[in-house]
Order: sequence, then structure tokens, then C-alpha cells
Amino acid sequence: MTRLALAVLLLVSLNTLALPAQTRQPVEQFVAAHQQPILRELVELLSIPNVAADRANVRRNADLLRDLFTKRGFTAEILETDGNPLVFAELRVPGAQRTLLFYAHYDGQPVDPKGWSQASPFTPVLRRARLEDGGQEIPNFLALQQFPPDARLYARSASDDKAPIVALLTALDALASMKQRPTSNVKVILDGEEEARSPSLAATMGRYREKYRADLMLILDGPLHASGKPTLSFGARGTLSFQLTTFGPKFALHSGHYGNWAPNPAFDMTRLLASMKGADGRVLVDGFYDDVPPLSPEERRILAAVPDAPDELMRFFGIGRTDQVGSNLQEALQYPSLNIRGLQSGDIGDQARTIIPDRATAEIDVRLVMETDPERMLQRILTHIRAQGFHVLLNAEPDDQTRARYPRIVRISRVNSTKAYRTEMTLPESQALIRTLERVWAEPPVRNRTMGGTVPIDFFIQALGMPAIGVPVVNFDNNQHSNNENLRLQNLWDAVISFAAVLQM
Amino acid sequence: MTRLALAVLLLVSLNTLALPAQTRQPVEQFVAAHQQPILRELVELLSIPNVAADRANVRRNADLLRDLFTKRGFTAEILETDGNPLVFAELRVPGAQRTLLFYAHYDGQPVDPKGWSQASPFTPVLRRARLEDGGQEIPNFLALQQFPPDARLYARSASDDKAPIVALLTALDALASMKQRPTSNVKVILDGEEEARSPSLAATMGRYREKYRADLMLILDGPLHASGKPTLSFGARGTLSFQLTTFGPKFALHSGHYGNWAPNPAFDMTRLLASMKGADGRVLVDGFYDDVPPLSPEERRILAAVPDAPDELMRFFGIGRTDQVGSNLQEALQYPSLNIRGLQSGDIGDQARTIIPDRATAEIDVRLVMETDPERMLQRILTHIRAQGFHVLLNAEPDDQTRARYPRIVRISRVNSTKAYRTEMTLPESQALIRTLERVWAEPPVRNRTMGGTVPIDFFIQALGMPAIGVPVVNFDNNQHSNNENLRLQNLWDAVISFAAVLQM
Repeated sequence: MTRLALAVLLLVSLNTLALPAQTRQPVEQFVAAHQQPILRELVELLSIPNVAADRANVRRNADLLRDLFTKRGFTAEILETDGNPLVFAELRVPGAQRTLLFYAHYDGQPVDPKGWSQASPFTPVLRRARLEDGGQEIPNFLALQQFPPDARLYARSASDDKAPIVALLTALDALASMKQRPTSNVKVILDGEEEARSPSLAATMGRYREKYRADLMLILDGPLHASGKPTLSFGARGTLSFQLTTFGPKFALHSGHYGNWAPNPAFDMTRLLASMKGADGRVLVDGFYDDVPPLSPEERRILAAVPDAPDELMRFFGIGRTDQVGSNLQEALQYPSLNIRGLQSGDIGDQARTIIPDRATAEIDVRLVMETDPERMLQRILTHIRAQGFHVLLNAEPDDQTRARYPRIVRISRVNSTKAYRTEMTLPESQALIRTLERVWAEPPVRNRTMGGTVPIDFFIQALGMPAIGVPVVNFDNNQHSNNENLRLQNLWDAVISFAAVLQM
Repeated sequence: MTRLALAVLLLVSLNTLALPAQTRQPVEQFVAAHQQPILRELVELLSIPNVAADRANVRRNADLLRDLFTKRGFTAEILETDGNPLVFAELRVPGAQRTLLFYAHYDGQPVDPKGWSQASPFTPVLRRARLEDGGQEIPNFLALQQFPPDARLYARSASDDKAPIVALLTALDALASMKQRPTSNVKVILDGEEEARSPSLAATMGRYREKYRADLMLILDGPLHASGKPTLSFGARGTLSFQLTTFGPKFALHSGHYGNWAPNPAFDMTRLLASMKGADGRVLVDGFYDDVPPLSPEERRILAAVPDAPDELMRFFGIGRTDQVGSNLQEALQYPSLNIRGLQSGDIGDQARTIIPDRATAEIDVRLVMETDPERMLQRILTHIRAQGFHVLLNAEPDDQTRARYPRIVRISRVNSTKAYRTEMTLPESQALIRTLERVWAEPPVRNRTMGGTVPIDFFIQALGMPAIGVPVVNFDNNQHSNNENLRLQNLWDAVISFAAVLQM
């Protein structure tokens, strides 16, 4: 053993002794003994549909969550909003060293049940392994006491974002069973509109500023690093999304009678979109990357420390190339991106008809970083679109006069944005959290400078001036936002261990 | 009056006298007196769904059509095929000058009932005018005896292609009521798979060659010229259709976590499609127009004689520019075209999710002209696609090895083609038909050298070596192949007059 390694070992040991019960074993034993009730609690929660627009079921989710925290000795309440309710819960701890605010959300992305390999996204199914790896369904799984660690629970929000809530509840149970308590005051805010950019949470900032105040916000959302290692996220990209529509004839025309004469809006759309991004994946909109300063050597070092395995990832995803923004995945996430998330014109497959469609529609999402302002980005994109010869309409269909006047028309609509955020890794709270996970897992966590996804709580961080750090726990291959969303069970068990450690950090 | 005009007038009069009952009036009177039963017959036919895949209803269509011709004294039969049945009917006329073969089809394009402004595309609705012009529904219209001439009947196949069949039946009734008979033997073949490129009709060519033989084939399909004037089509473009699919990750990825790194298949698709057609509407595939010889001055003259009103059409369609192939609409139709008829990746609107889609799909149709061979055209397009850096798969999904090996992959599938045809206007049959319509309508018909749409009977013409001419009758703004297909009633009444004249030409 080198002297350096010995010194590190001693340091870790000392730190461990200095804090109450910062050991993994008792929590691990608690989880192993309670797999069935933990899973039952999660399944109960997942069985209540949580698409934001389904108000009645959203309310049922909120009621259940309030009760689950009340059961753990929290003062829990439902905060009414103009939209979906928030659940707020608080546990005051005598002699607490700090106040932690845990954020999670109980709403889920829209579902397309036809695209799922099970009867309903809200009737959870357990499989022995990943569906794509041939994972067979385990029937009547709630009767089991133990589960294979690689078993996967399939349901909307299994990973995004109900599992972290159940893991937090279980971590509280584990501490209670050990006759221990958190070393921090604990506040919990559960959002019901995260997938719709949290408008109602934002609207409560004035009213509940004091209620929400804490020393550190912990965001329980998003996946672990692909390596499966414990992960902390010190920032998240923001997002700017919008819909583009190009217009052809006022009604679909026969492609024989008018093909070569009536312009096709899908070709206009392909030309417009192709003008925005090169074959190398770099965005061609003027100034798109301009606001992002070059990464410093220290930043590059931190990014390089993330144990990505690009070759494995490429094999797993089945892609034969990557976009060339930044020199690796982590660097790529420090820059804004431009993505086509939806594209439609006419019909495909058996429904295809030989027409010149009347319109083509594209859904675009731009991921923003700390330095890129949504409004400035939108203006740059609009300038680019106009430079391609398009007349731009905001939210409106073209009238006859507009159609006659402009050879190329595009409508932009459904504009929404969320700013990015970033917390410095050098802050004392950041350092404490890094050390806590390092101790309990006996290895340093993966530190994401900016994670790729968006957590729409920038307004929260800005209003309260508090640092925020993401503590993701779910498997990276969870099909988040897509069909067949799933949770690897071992990730749930491990999440309990991480959260129990954080509660005692 | 000039001497020339007088000579023309004499010539027209002599020709009129030389043929039996070549006058418009008695047929017009017959139609005026029988509007209700004519419309009832059409509505009965339109009420039977006729999507090619709906075998049971397709059979009901065929049975009814056979009976309708039997009722008119034809020997009518159903010709069984491996696909949908054909209806063949024949009327032999003593002393006939020739044999005419009328072709029409009774199947219709697929329907998307949600896109229609009525309960069902197979429950016909009559409106006072065009839907887009605010045409109100006329309730219980089958109780009326007379109808406004601009009233429109909305139903799948109202125009494409059941109205021409009912007009032909009515023309036979009108002649019978005048105690007259056709001057030609009449054969009728009704296709049940035209919208699927007539595979079953093609398969009967060997067996029924003699049954089908005639001196002239008349194709009752497609719309009148946009001016609404009587129209003859001496050719039709062919078609080559296929589906293109580009591949991204094997499953949709979160656009935040992997945007800027995992390539987006929709961007690949937009770049590929944008590379195929310039902003001026000209196709950029190498050699795309090469096989088409330049139009001769005489051909240009014939094309220029078509009374197109491009400014009006542009206003009507709401387009502010046209593609620049040929110097006008008619010239444009003498060249092949390339059209995106469908495009899809991910989802749009409320279903949009923030993902990098796993694939993007485009449905392409290429309209061919007489000189452009489908296979040669396909090869040129494949060469173009490969030149854009894509590895091309035929009908197959990429396996893991293929995904790893090729950075850009496109699949081509659903390849189908139909050749174009063209009949010389100078043939005696062509001239006789032109004169017949000119007499009955007192003006020369619009003569289309090549109509833009496709009639999949090239194999028919080639096998029998007979000339074929299209006699379209329906309104050009009939929403053929699209939602809210409709027929302007005056077009139906006028069609009876044209067909009665042709039966006595």
C-alpha cells in the first residue's frame, strides 16, 4: 500500500466515525428484509395515472403522497394552485445542522398505450430483466418477498419520478428502525406539473418563499450515470421548445395532378430543418454556441473524470456515429443542442395517400446551458429561419392575403422555455454531499457539471438563492419520457442507502 | 361572318346530321327529369364501403355493380381474382361501328374518418356548396326531385371513381328512353384494386385478353380540367412509390441526456430529402429529367392551348409560388416529379415528448412520364441516396452489426410502380373522340397530352395494343384521395351528356 492510499483510507475512516451510523450495512439489511412492502408502496403509487391533464387522478396521487409523509411523522399538506396541487411535507429535527429541501415530481409524461408492451402504463408489470433483453414477466410478483436485483418494474413514472419518492420514504423508515433521525431538518416539495414545466410551482414562489427556504435543495430526478455509479448533478440544461409549421396548399392536393407545380410543405420543412444542423451534428444557426465560454482546463478535467464508456453506449444504442459537439459526451452536454422531437406531414404506411400535404409540422427542443438565454436563442433561430426566405407567423394560421404575398411561410407556436442552472462544486454544501456519497459507497460519486436533461426549477433556485444539486438514482436505460418506462429494482434498493446517508450527512 | 367560320359551321352541322341523335337537348331533359333516381343510385353505391382491404364490402360493391349493368341489358359477370373481384359487362350492338372498352374502378383510397366533416365517409352528405365556401348540409336530400347545380355530394369515391360509373349507366338509360342504342359495342371493366395499382386486373390479362379486346379504351377516371371544360386525356403519368426510413438509436432517447451526442434520424431524413429537391422545386437527383426529350414546338402549342388559369389556381390553393419545372402547369406534367406524401418521426402536438426518435419515415411518390422507366428511376434515386453517405437496406431493419458499421443507414421498402402511357392525338380514334365532344358541347375539349395523375392500366394498353384515352368528368376540386372527397352535381349531369355522345360517336 502506498503512503497516499493509506492516508486516503485513514481519512475515510475518520470521516465515517465522525458521523452517526454512516454505515451502509443496517440500511441494506432493512431494505433486504422489506422488499415486498417497499415495492407494494411504489406499485400503489404507480397505479394511479398521473398525466398532468387528468386532474382527478392527479389529485388522488397528491392525497396518497401527503398521507405517506404524514405516516412518517411529517407535517404534510396539499398546497392548492391554479393547476395541479403541490404536496409539501416538513420534519423538524431538534439540533439539526441544516435544512434540506428535497424536490421530486409525481406527474408523468403523456402516454401512448399502444406503444407499450403491456396492457396499461398504469398497471405495473415486473420483468426478470430488460424487455429488449427478453425479460419475461413475473406474474403475481407482489406475492414475492425477494426479487432478482436486475428485475425491472415497467410503468409510467416508475423511474421518472415516483421511485425516488418511495426511496426517500423508505430511507426515513430505515433510520426509524435503527432508532436514528435525520441530522438535518427535512422539507419535501412534490411537484404535479414538472413535465409541463412547473407553472403552478412557479406561481407559489411569492406566497411560500419562507416555507420553501432551505440551505440546500436536493433534486431527486433523472438517471444515474450510465456506468450505474452513484452520481451527483451540479447543473441541468434548460430547454426552449417550439412547434414549426410550414404551409403548402390550403388543402391536400393530388400529387399527380399538381406534383411539379404546387409546392410541397414537407420539402420546405426538410430544407428549413436541414439548414439548421450540419451532418456533423453542429448547429448552423448563427451565434448558437457564442454565449458559451470555452471550457477551462479544470472543467475539462472534471468532465473527463466522468467514467463514460462511449463505445459501449454506442453499441447499446445501436448508433454508428455521434454528433460532434465537444470532444466527448460530457463536453457535449455543456453546450446547447437542437433536436427534432417530432415531425409529421401527410400519413405513412397503409394510411399514406398520394397527396401533396397541406402542411408539415416539426416539434423542436433546444437544450440550453447556464450561459444561453432562452429569449436570445429564440431570436437567433428566428433570424436564421427568416434568412432561409421564410415569412414567420407567431401562433397564427396564414390568411389568404399572407398566403398570396409570401412564397414561403412558417408558423412558430407552442413556445416554452426553462432556464438552465448550475451550482459550483466548490461550495461547502457541494463538498459535504460529495463526501457523504463517497463514504457510504466507498468511491467518489460521478460528478456531472451539467446534466443533459432539464429540471424546471431554475425560478426556484433563483428566487431562494440557494444551491441545488441533483441526486439521481434510477437506471439510465429507463426509457424515461418514452414507451416502456422502467425501473431496475437494485437501483431502488441502492437509492434508499444513498438517501439515508444524505439524511444523516 | 368570315368564309372560314362559315365553313367550320357547315362542317360541324354536317357532322351532327351524319350521326343519330347527337344532340344535347334530349339527354339533358332526361337527366333533369330523373335527378332523384340518378342520385339515389349513386348514394346506394357510395354507402357500401370500398377500401380495398375490406373484402366483404368490396364484394357487395361488385355484386351491386354487376346487377346495375344486367338491368341495362348487359351480359354482366364477376371475374374472380386472387384479390378483389372485377366486374365485366358487355353489350353487343348489331351493326356496331367499333368496340369501346370503358374502364372505371369501384375501390377507393383509405379513409381517416376523423379528418372528415361528417359522421362517415360512407354516409353521403349533400351540401349546398363546397364545404370550404360554407356549404351547408341539405338534410334528407334524397326526398328532393331537383338539386342546386353547385350542390356537392360528400363521400369517399363520390368523384373517384363511382360517379363516372353511374353517369355511364344513366347515359344508357337516356339513350334507351329515346329509343336509341349505342353505335359501338360496349364493354365495361370495373376494377376493384385501382388504388392499390390493379394487381388482380393485371393478373387476368392472359386469361381474358380476348374478352377485353376493343378498338378504343376509354378511361373514366380523374377530374376535368380546372376550367370545368370538357376534357380528354391522352396520357397519364406513371408512379414509383417507396418508403424511406432513417435510423437513430435503437430506442428513443431522452433529448436532454443525449442531445448533441446521439444522432437524430429526423435530421438525417431532412438532410437526405432536402438533398433531393431544390428550393425551386427541381429535383436534384442526377439524371432525373434526362430521359425526357425537349418538347417540340407543336407539343408546346398543344400544351399552351389548355386553358389553365394559374393565378386563379394559386389563389384557390393559397400558394404564393409554384415549383419551376417546365414553364407552366401543363409543361410541368410532361416531366417526372418527386413528392413527399408522408413524413413522420416521434410525435407532434400534445403527444410530443422530449426524445431523440429511434427512426424517421418518409413516403415518397415519383410521377413518371412515358419516357421514364420506373426501374431506371429507382436506381438513379438509390445512387443519389448512397452519394449522400447512406448505407441502403432493402426492406430490412438494420441488425446490430450493420448499425455499428455504418454511420448513416436508410431502408427503402414498399417499392411499387406503374408505368405512364400516352396515346397520339393524331390517331383516327383520337380525332373521332375529340370531334364527338366538340359537337355535343359546341366547343373543342381541353386536350391533355399527359394528365398528372396515374391510371394503373399501362399493362392493359400494352398487352392489347389498343389506344386509350381518358374521359374525365368530375370537378377538379373534389379532394380526391383526401378527406372530404366530393362531387359537384352539375358535373354528374354533364357527364351523362358526354357519355351519351360517346356511346353514339
